[in-house]
Amino acid sequence: MSNSHIRLNPATREWVIYAPSRRKRPQDFQQKEAEPIIEKYPIDNCPFCDANLDPQESILLEIPNLSGTGWQVRVVPNKYSALSADVEPKRSLAGIYLELPGYGHHEVVIESPEHYQTLATMSVEAVSAIIEAYRLRYLALMQIPHNQWVVIFRNHGKSAGASLRHPHSQIIATPIVPRHRRWHEDEAQRYFDEWGRCAYCDILTFEQYERHRVVAENESYLAFIPFAAEVPFEVWILPKDHQSEFGAITPVQVSAFAAILKDVLAKLYKKLNNPDYNYAIITAARYKVNDPQLHWYCEIRPRLTTSAGFEIGSGISINPSLPESDADFLNEA
Amino acid sequence: MSNSHIRLNPATREWVIYAPSRRKRPQDFQQKEAEPIIEKYPIDNCPFCDANLDPQESILLEIPNLSGTGWQVRVVPNKYSALSADVEPKRSLAGIYLELPGYGHHEVVIESPEHYQTLATMSVEAVSAIIEAYRLRYLALMQIPHNQWVVIFRNHGKSAGASLRHPHSQIIATPIVPRHRRWHEDEAQRYFDEWGRCAYCDILTFEQYERHRVVAENESYLAFIPFAAEVPFEVWILPKDHQSEFGAITPVQVSAFAAILKDVLAKLYKKLNNPDYNYAIITAARYKVNDPQLHWYCEIRPRLTTSAGFEIGSGISINPSLPESDADFLNEA
Repeated sequence: MSNSHIRLNPATREWVIYAPSRRKRPQDFQQKEAEPIIEKYPIDNCPFCDANLDPQESILLEIPNLSGTGWQVRVVPNKYSALSADVEPKRSLAGIYLELPGYGHHEVVIESPEHYQTLATMSVEAVSAIIEAYRLRYLALMQIPHNQWVVIFRNHGKSAGASLRHPHSQIIATPIVPRHRRWHEDEAQRYFDEWGRCAYCDILTFEQYERHRVVAENESYLAFIPFAAEVPFEVWILPKDHQSEFGAITPVQVSAFAAILKDVLAKLYKKLNNPDYNYAIITAARYKVNDPQLHWYCEIRPRLTTSAGFEIGSGISINPSLPESDADFLNEA
Repeated sequence: MSNSHIRLNPATREWVIYAPSRRKRPQDFQQKEAEPIIEKYPIDNCPFCDANLDPQESILLEIPNLSGTGWQVRVVPNKYSALSADVEPKRSLAGIYLELPGYGHHEVVIESPEHYQTLATMSVEAVSAIIEAYRLRYLALMQIPHNQWVVIFRNHGKSAGASLRHPHSQIIATPIVPRHRRWHEDEAQRYFDEWGRCAYCDILTFEQYERHRVVAENESYLAFIPFAAEVPFEVWILPKDHQSEFGAITPVQVSAFAAILKDVLAKLYKKLNNPDYNYAIITAARYKVNDPQLHWYCEIRPRLTTSAGFEIGSGISINPSLPESDADFLNEA
């Protein structure tokens, strides 16, 4: 029956139940066949392919390719934007309820001119150009006063919410800071008040020392499966420099982050047969960037399991896979 | 571009972005075809069918059928339990991390002897027997000292995490109270301290008065789509009596709750063509049952959309569907 156990993530204080009786072998998580990605737009009229660029499109940023003969990465406004900068984020009451107009920015990072590429198969230089685009747009969006927070994320594959195959990620700037973020801040604050140190720095030091869950490392970043990973093969990439916000990344670190991100995604691609996944960069909200206890990171979540009623009702994840076994599996030659 | 807006749920203080430019017509959420539910076990050896009952099975509870010739609802231990009552929930350190053995209870409520039934198509009497089983097992589990919290939930359909077709729900008792629950408690406390009233009672009064989002009502319960619903067609069923915990439900209320639950599920079944869904009963943790600001409810979430990187990274939902339109659609004759 037993040997199931429950772990606490010391940074977020999320509990996770590990259920070995439901455990699958890591191989069981491999995609059985290449999942066909929904082709809302066949390549002939893919809106992100060069040939189909809307001439009215306002291009927010373009990073040229290495040969200087065209673009490598392009950032454009999302045509199906969830938010708009044309309104004021002014709160009002609707009966007893609070609401505000949908102020914000929603941008698409077209990661390559090539329709069939993905980060796991690109060169480190190509991924660096994407990270550099993230950095530049992050800095620009954080200068706009109403933007309280910037979320950079990527959806890969149908079950991860991607509707287009052409490689792209998205950036959303919001006029609000949600309770999800506030909880992270509060827990980091509590840890700092108790221990006088950043919780994430302590995790980083321990993972580097213990090495049971490390999946990649370079001079500036450590990638590991968290002790209390909520889903199989969840990976966190933490900067070794204590930085509260993604915007603090230096030009040298841009390349190092690109290298480790590509490395982790390539391992997932190879060992799990191109799984669907999401990643998000978790970074400080505007007025917290100088808080000494915050530390940005990138969270990668393969979509291998389905959350159900218990997770929805309780907020506790049941993970059928042990972080240490997952790390071993990814590290096998 | 615009007309998107952002709403705050006053009880949970979750922000939700409403994105009309991504809005679908309610009809677009209808299942195009009946989703085949995974038949891990064909009916011939369905473990919940009478003919295949394991003679070693310990039956925790049986509710007889109306004619008294057999069982109507049966509760058994989950054979693939995530938790076990054979261990002590004693915390220990693993390096810098906190963990405990997987103590707890995990039970299956077999909702009918009939393999092809579902709540939406059962009689109110049959659903009442299920709710009565919930009540009895809730009370029994709350008497066991290590159980801190009881979560009752149901997964319907493959995308909602169900792996068996035979109608069933589940009950999990945990030795921990997660941050998800603590946040609900803290927000209810703050509201009570400010207004001297229960936030959920205030919502109930307002929804009953405004009636823009009500989908069903009887003498004891109100069912409505919350002002800041996170997903299309999310429905909350609230008891009109201020009760902190599900166990406070009276025998008369058991029938009334069964009637409104069946009513709501039947509307979803009919108007959305038997969608996959989860529901969970959100109730007070053990040591909070006497807190004057808590109010239990049932949350139903159809699985019509896919959460993606933004939701994972930010905790903010983007809902393409307006609660008022969803309620109108469900209420159309």
